[in-house]
Parts: sequence; C-alpha cells; structure tokens
Amino acid sequence: MITSLQNPAIKNIIKLSKSNERREQQLFVTEGARELSLALQSGYRVKAVYLCREMFDKTKYPNVLDPIPEEMLFSVSPGVFAKIAYRENSDGIVALLKPKSHDLKDIRLTKNPFLILLESVEKPGNLGAVLRTADAAAADAVIVCDPQTDLYNPNVIRSGVGGLFTVQTAVCTSEEALTWLHEHGITVYAAELQAAEFYQNVDFTIPSAIVMGTEADGLTGFWLKNATKRIKIPMRGKIDSLNVSVSTAILTFEAMRQRGF
Amino acid sequence: MITSLQNPAIKNIIKLSKSNERREQQLFVTEGARELSLALQSGYRVKAVYLCREMFDKTKYPNVLDPIPEEMLFSVSPGVFAKIAYRENSDGIVALLKPKSHDLKDIRLTKNPFLILLESVEKPGNLGAVLRTADAAAADAVIVCDPQTDLYNPNVIRSGVGGLFTVQTAVCTSEEALTWLHEHGITVYAAELQAAEFYQNVDFTIPSAIVMGTEADGLTGFWLKNATKRIKIPMRGKIDSLNVSVSTAILTFEAMRQRGF
Repeated sequence: MITSLQNPAIKNIIKLSKSNERREQQLFVTEGARELSLALQSGYRVKAVYLCREMFDKTKYPNVLDPIPEEMLFSVSPGVFAKIAYRENSDGIVALLKPKSHDLKDIRLTKNPFLILLESVEKPGNLGAVLRTADAAAADAVIVCDPQTDLYNPNVIRSGVGGLFTVQTAVCTSEEALTWLHEHGITVYAAELQAAEFYQNVDFTIPSAIVMGTEADGLTGFWLKNATKRIKIPMRGKIDSLNVSVSTAILTFEAMRQRGF
Repeated sequence: MITSLQNPAIKNIIKLSKSNERREQQLFVTEGARELSLALQSGYRVKAVYLCREMFDKTKYPNVLDPIPEEMLFSVSPGVFAKIAYRENSDGIVALLKPKSHDLKDIRLTKNPFLILLESVEKPGNLGAVLRTADAAAADAVIVCDPQTDLYNPNVIRSGVGGLFTVQTAVCTSEEALTWLHEHGITVYAAELQAAEFYQNVDFTIPSAIVMGTEADGLTGFWLKNATKRIKIPMRGKIDSLNVSVSTAILTFEAMRQRGF
C-alpha cells in the first residue's frame, strides 16, 4: 500500500495535471468508477489504477476493476488518495490512461449525421459540458477546432462526467473541419448573435453541424463566411449572451426534436 | 486612496464572502461595471463602491458611476483591488449592495406566465446559469425552493452575469410555491428521468412552470406527487443525466419556441 506523498508514482499523478506533462508522457488521469468503466468500454488502455479500498467498497460499479490486471492495481492510503483525487465521489479510483488519437478521418458517421463544432474553446468546463450534452443527444461527434484547452484536461473529464469517453471527438484546424464537412455533404450552421435566421426556423433534419464560437468573441470570420447559414437564438432579456454549453444544448435538442429523437 | 489590505473596509469585503456575514450585515458584494449597472436599473441600493481607476478607464460602461454619490466612492490601489475582486474582467469595480426581499407575493406575472422552479439547488454556479437563461428567455421569474445556497453567493452573481438583477426571483418553501402556483392557475411540469411524458409533447403555451430537482437526487416526492405532469428529456447516450442548468435551458427554450418567442 502506498502511504507516502513522496512516492514517485504519486508525485507523477500530480504532475499530470499539467498539459505539457500529459503530452510528453502520453498519459492522462481520470477518476471515478463510472468514468473508468466508460473509458474501458470505449477501448481506452489503462496504465495503472490507484485504489483506496475503503472508498471503493461503497461504489455502485463493483465490477469495474475485473478487467484490470493485478500488476496495474496499486492500493493507496486515504491520505494519499485525498491528495490525488479532485472530486468527492470518485469511488476510491484514480486511473492513468493512454490517450487516443482524435483524427477527423476516424470519425464514423451515421446516415443522417448531426455534429457539434467548437471553435477555439477555452474553458475546460464548457468543453466537458458540451460532451455531456452530445452524449445525451447521441450527436455523431464533437469536433474541436483550434482549441485553447486539451481534451484530457481534468476539468474536461470531470464536467463531462465521462462524455469524453462515450462521444466521438476530433481535434483539427477550422480549415480541415470545413473541408471534411463539405466532403461529407454536411450543412454548416454557424451560431452568432447577429445572424439573420432564428434557429427554430432552420432545417436540422438534413445532415448538419452547428458551429459555436467562444463566449468572449463569438465565431471568427472564417466560420461566419464559410457557413451554409448563420443562425441565432432569440435573446429577449437584458443580458446579451448565453453560456456556450447552454446555447449548444438548446440548438442540439432542437435538432433532435425536429428529427423526432 | 485605500492601499492597505488591513483597512477595515477591505477586510469586511472579504468577510462578506461568507453567507452568515451577508445575512447579519444585510450587504452583499458584486463586481463588474455591467453587473452594477443592471443592479442599479433594478433598484438595488448601493452602500459603497470600491474603484480601481486604472482598470475602470478601460470599461465599456463609463457612465455607470454617474448616479453614485461621491461619499460612497472609494479609490483603491491595484494591489488591494486584486485582493477583493474574483474575476478578471471586473472593470475595476467592486460594489457593496443591500439585498432586496424575495417574496412570492411581490412577483408580478405576465398574462401567460412561464416560470422556472429549482428545488434545493446546491451549486451557486448552477443557480447563476439558470438566472442567465431565464433572462435570455424572458421567463417571468425563477423561484428557488428550500435552497442550499443563498442568492447573493458571489458565484451566483458571477455565473449569472447579472441575471440575479434582471430576473424576478423568490425564495420560499416548496409548499408555499405549490399553493401560490395553484392560486395563479399555473400548470406544473416536474422534470425527472423516469417520467412518462416527453417534454416536447406537452403544452407550454398555457401558463406553466417547470420544476427542476438537484443533479444528485432529482426532485423530492413532494413535487413528483403534486405536479400536474411529470416530464422528461429523451436521453439517448450512455450517461443518464444532464447538467441541471442545461436541462433547464432545453425545457425553457422549448417553451419559448412553442410560444413563438
């Protein structure tokens, strides 16, 4: 049992909260039995699992460790676990996983796809919330263009409650994404405040993608120019914006409603 | 100019991050020129404004201080301001305001009202996000039943980007809210995961309220039993829940869509 915060493996988990360490080591950290279970179902490969047995005894997912080889399981003391876990309900599990590739060419589309594109998303919490929504709506994929955060940021995983593992994702430039959307005959709806068309009046029953900009600056000219249509959400209050994860959900569920879910 | 962190006024601002201090002193803190402007428009009364002039020079709301009497304005140094402000874009303004009452009886309803009820909301960030959505949708009011956080928590104000000031709000027990809704002939839709009816199939064009539970436990039996109808959002993914501010927005904007905005 690991009981010391000076243990090199424990120190390394804390290091992995930094993006450059994740990139160099090709490892990231996730916590929670449900998240680990979803990651394993999605084919993520485990490097190690750090386990606080007292906490794991209460989990709703007791079988999650069955596929993990003994030599990858490390018991840690409650004190050590408290240091490596960020959440309260992590079921005594912190796991090191190997990243996957997130290439556009690997995205498998359904017959009538619906996709969510985020341009230059900055806040990991927003990206996580969008992944959670994409899971709930069974969107084909979330495409992250020119991101300011990486997919494996702990806050993406946390606020996505596992959406990172259940939703197809690609990371690419805006140019690559546009070319790919055109190749696949997908209509591109760019969301912005000044758009001419209200979202509830456009046709989401065709193969389509919504493109969302940052909260601070909205979409760049590239998407405003190249979108098939520019759409907006009616704003009837005194505050002229919505949280980007909220506006993504409103558009996504209107698309699903039009498609009869 | 206040330059010392030991200044009693500065120490008091930091104290006011605690709920019991806010209650005892009948004061709360807000930051940002836009937020202050919205608060003043809504009739909130100012006790004092702490101003970092270097930062205020760049604000988009240069007139916000016009109605503030000289004796309520206190200049602070950038070092002191950094200590009392939480956000990055606060325009050099931190203000002390007096709370309002949030009685159900003060809510003024439109002819065909739409309301959002939150039961036992716990996370200030979620409450703030719902207020922001309620502003955008011009909902009649947000009613907070048996809350686990107070309306003037700094995170409510921050994540609501001023929605606390632009949206009518009431705080009460669930029993009081139900009686009041009945008195006003408002149909009550309780959101839950196991409900029989999909939200897109119910009638939001009549006077109606949605009731949302906590993310962890959903609604209590009280609302499930007393609601006119129980409604749900179709969940097509592997994760069986949505963020409560996201599900509130989906239901609210479907209501607005049915009403033709």
